[in-house]
Amino acid sequence: MHFHRDDLAGLESRYRAALVNSLTGFKSANLVGTADEHGQTNLAIMSSAVHLGSHPPLIALVIRPDPVERHTLSNLLASGCYTLNHVRAEWLEAAHQTAARYPREQSEFAATGLSEGWWPEFPAPFVREATIRMGLRLREHQELAINRTHLVIGEVTQLELPEDCLREDGSVDLESAGSLALSGLDSYHATRRLRRMAYAKPDRPPRAVEGPAD
Amino acid sequence: MHFHRDDLAGLESRYRAALVNSLTGFKSANLVGTADEHGQTNLAIMSSAVHLGSHPPLIALVIRPDPVERHTLSNLLASGCYTLNHVRAEWLEAAHQTAARYPREQSEFAATGLSEGWWPEFPAPFVREATIRMGLRLREHQELAINRTHLVIGEVTQLELPEDCLREDGSVDLESAGSLALSGLDSYHATRRLRRMAYAKPDRPPRAVEGPAD
Repeated sequence: MHFHRDDLAGLESRYRAALVNSLTGFKSANLVGTADEHGQTNLAIMSSAVHLGSHPPLIALVIRPDPVERHTLSNLLASGCYTLNHVRAEWLEAAHQTAARYPREQSEFAATGLSEGWWPEFPAPFVREATIRMGLRLREHQELAINRTHLVIGEVTQLELPEDCLREDGSVDLESAGSLALSGLDSYHATRRLRRMAYAKPDRPPRAVEGPAD
Repeated sequence: MHFHRDDLAGLESRYRAALVNSLTGFKSANLVGTADEHGQTNLAIMSSAVHLGSHPPLIALVIRPDPVERHTLSNLLASGCYTLNHVRAEWLEAAHQTAARYPREQSEFAATGLSEGWWPEFPAPFVREATIRMGLRLREHQELAINRTHLVIGEVTQLELPEDCLREDGSVDLESAGSLALSGLDSYHATRRLRRMAYAKPDRPPRAVEGPAD
């Protein structure tokens, strides 16, 4: 099937949202934890985390100014801190449920049964059930003129993960950590490693360093 | 294991790159196709595609100004057009090999054996072997002050995908399309759907609309 620009513009809006949200391919599934100045917590599922750089470790999030994501946005702009927590299969229903439009005074932690954890002197809650979780400090924020979504850039200043997920070269075995992938607006996927590839060089054929996961 | 900010800053640079590139979770695996004004083609694997909006359909890419990605960047800034092509298991080695530092005058299509396809009046090549492929027109570009990476925003103006991957509600079954997920710098993963969840509402418990893929 071939869609041109006008075909896409002419689609019914929910159909178009489901289609276009699928086009980037698989996405990360993270819960973003924040708190307001009174300690009222908020949790929201997001699939827009993107690697920006390693030194310093920077991650960007695209946040929509809609009823669900704007609590997260206003909290992190005020406190300057937020957490990212990889979603696991055991509680994907609770993670997805954070997308519901709860009123500001209701915490998604309480509503979904997930547990708050706190690091010393870090004013945003992490998800205790998450095996990979990190704290970020806001470094840059802008509203994108093109469609008024917000680009939020943070530096990772706290990172917790299980030792047995960390390989010798520093890479993380996301499968043994139980991290999921997301597609479209609502599909959650487990993964199975096919191959790890060696660093690519122009004068050498591609070469796998590891095959399928055990 | 707990890493603080100073721990991360003190890591050996390749180790830190492998670690930090793993932190966002699973990522999309796309080949970005471009051509220069003489029709010299370029192909580069990228995992930074992120959904920005559906109406118009906008996708952002983070592009690094390094030797590999700058050919893509200069081509798409000059032509205003580029393609995104979902990577499949059958040719993931070729896709990964596009990350090698080939000289500008060598096309990664020729070097890796992937085939160029062209749409009428669209000056960037797609990958014939890709079942999901799209053409984008550049809408916005900025260098991010924080680390000099480039944020490139494009509008999807061409989209090709197999009819049997498109569900009735507009969402795409990425598994039946054969799209892969990427983690870290070098790991390629197939996926297995666990659940599709219904639209979340505050007054209703989470509910699956579909279970595991057949």
